Amino acid sequence: MTQSTPREPLDLVLEYHRAWTKGDVDRAIKLVSEDFVCQAPTGALGREEMRKYLAGFVPRLTGIVDIAQFCDDAHVVLIYYPQTAVTQTTPAAEYFTIRDGLIAESLLMFDRLAYAPPKDV
Amino acid sequence: MTQSTPREPLDLVLEYHRAWTKGDVDRAIKLVSEDFVCQAPTGALGREEMRKYLAGFVPRLTGIVDIAQFCDDAHVVLIYYPQTAVTQTTPAAEYFTIRDGLIAESLLMFDRLAYAPPKDV
Repeated sequence: MTQSTPREPLDLVLEYHRAWTKGDVDRAIKLVSEDFVCQAPTGALGREEMRKYLAGFVPRLTGIVDIAQFCDDAHVVLIYYPQTAVTQTTPAAEYFTIRDGLIAESLLMFDRLAYAPPKDV
Repeated sequence: MTQSTPREPLDLVLEYHRAWTKGDVDRAIKLVSEDFVCQAPTGALGREEMRKYLAGFVPRLTGIVDIAQFCDDAHVVLIYYPQTAVTQTTPAAEYFTIRDGLIAESLLMFDRLAYAPPKDV
């Protein structure tokens, strides 16, 4: 359940972020707790649902532009443009809560309408 | 163009946030620069467009639950639930850039589909 090498929240989250945005979803999900919950625009996603969600999005990703990162002892915020063929400049924000060296919760904020062609909404 | 009493970015942004969420949009807009641009899900909003945007949303606001705030010397992030009759738990994030004592830019991230009844989308 816990990492063998505890690390700072920001390092942990950046490793997660870099892993999935480079297509290594399995590596990213290893940094997420068993009881992880992401509140995404489509609803709450558990650990395995998050794996599928990221795996489904990664093929659409054409680039990542990181905008900002902030952290405290137990939380990290990342703001970035997840670029796709549909949009290059629609920002997303993720607010992560870290517990026991793993990502335990996240709030994922972006506008589905800006990313999806109308037929996909 | 500049405030007579310069203040810290977080104080400035919290004053803006509290003003508009309490319905005082004019007070909020006084804290925004003349060349302010907000990148909102509906597109870029200048200062006067932001005034109209907030004034249009305020009547729908039933509550605000603040989740997190982070800042550095020139930026602030706020994460909160802007509650409406449609949703109590859809988060929004705002990433503000401060210049010359005023809010000069913001990125506003939320999911329009979660807030709007389908007919309003």
